Amino acid sequence: MDRGTCLHTLRKHADPVYSIAFSPDGKLLASGSFDKWVYVWSVQEGVVVKQYRGTSGIFEVCWDKEGGRLAACFSNNTVSLSV
Amino acid sequence: MDRGTCLHTLRKHADPVYSIAFSPDGKLLASGSFDKWVYVWSVQEGVVVKQYRGTSGIFEVCWDKEGGRLAACFSNNTVSLSV
Amino acid sequence: MDRGTCLHTLRKHADPVYSIAFSPDGKLLASGSFDKWVYVWSVQEGVVVKQYRGTSGIFEVCWDKEGGRLAACFSNNTVSLSV
Amino acid sequence: MDRGTCLHTLRKHADPVYSIAFSPDGKLLASGSFDKWVYVWSVQEGVVVKQYRGTSGIFEVCWDKEGGRLAACFSNNTVSLSV
Repeated sequence: MDRGTCLHTLRKHADPVYSIAFSPDGKLLASGSFDKWVYVWSVQEGVVVKQYRGTSGIFEVCWDKEGGRLAACFSNNTVSLSV
Repeated sequence: MDRGTCLHTLRKHADPVYSIAFSPDGKLLASGSFDKWVYVWSVQEGVVVKQYRGTSGIFEVCWDKEGGRLAACFSNNTVSLSV
Repeated sequence: MDRGTCLHTLRKHADPVYSIAFSPDGKLLASGSFDKWVYVWSVQEGVVVKQYRGTSGIFEVCWDKEGGRLAACFSNNTVSLSV
Repeated sequence: MDRGTCLHTLRKHADPVYSIAFSPDGKLLASGSFDKWVYVWSVQEGVVVKQYRGTSGIFEVCWDKEGGRLAACFSNNTVSLSV
C-alpha cells in the first residue's frame, strides 16, 4: 500500500471547512468555511489567489462547468454568485 | 491576490440553504433550503426563473446530465423529481 | 416566473434522505437515507428498480462515471460498493 | 425489482464516513471519515491502495478531473491537497 503524499496543507480558514470543489480545469480549488470566507487556492502553489467574504457560514461551494462562476450557499438563507 | 467579485447575492430563502447546483449548461443555479423551497435562478440576471415547493426541509439538490430533471431530498423521508 | 412541475414524489424511505445522485445516463436516481436503504429509482416511472440495504445510516451516495457502480458511506464507519 | 448486489463492504475507518468520491476513471474510490483518515480503495479488489492521515475529522473529499489530485476539508479549519 502506498502512503499518500501531501502536496499542501492549506491554512487560512478560521472555522471548520464544510465544502471544497476543484475548478473544471483542475488548477484551482475553492473552499467554503463557517468563517464566512470562500478561498480559491492555486493547486500548484498552495496559495490563495482569490477570496470572497460572505455574510455567514458556508455549507457548500460549487463551480459552473466552464469554471467562470463560483456559487456558495449560506446559513443566513442567502446564495452568492461570484467570478 | 484578487478579491473575488460578487455578481449576485440571491435572497429569497427563509431558512439556511444546504445545497446548490449549477445546471450542466451553467445558465441556471438550483438552491435547496430548509424552508422547503427549491429555487432555480438565472445566473445572468440573478432572479428566480422557476420554483418548486416541497413538503419539508431540503438536504441536497442535483441536476441530471442534460439539465432537464432536478431532484431534491427531504427531511420528511421523501425525494422529488421535477422539470 | 415558471412554477416547477413535479414529476414524481418518491416515497419509500422511512427516515430523512441525506443524499441523491443521478446515474450518468440520467435514467436512474439513487437515494441514500438514515433508514439504511439505498434505493435506485427509475426517473421515467418513479418506481424503485433496485434496492440495497446497508447496516446503518447513509450520509452520501455516488455513481462511478459509467454508472455501473454505486457507492454509499455510513454512520457505522463502513463504505459499500454495489452493482 | 432487482435486489442490488453488494460487491464489497469496505471496513477500515474507525468513525462515521461523511464523504466518498470515485476517481474519474472509476477504478478508485476515496473515502473521508471523522477518524481523520482518507482511504483510497481499489474498486475491483475492495482493498486500500493509498492512505493519507489528516489532523482532524473530514467533511468532504473530492478528486480533480484528471484524478491526479485529491482534496479533503477538515473540522480543524484546514484543507489538504494530496497525490
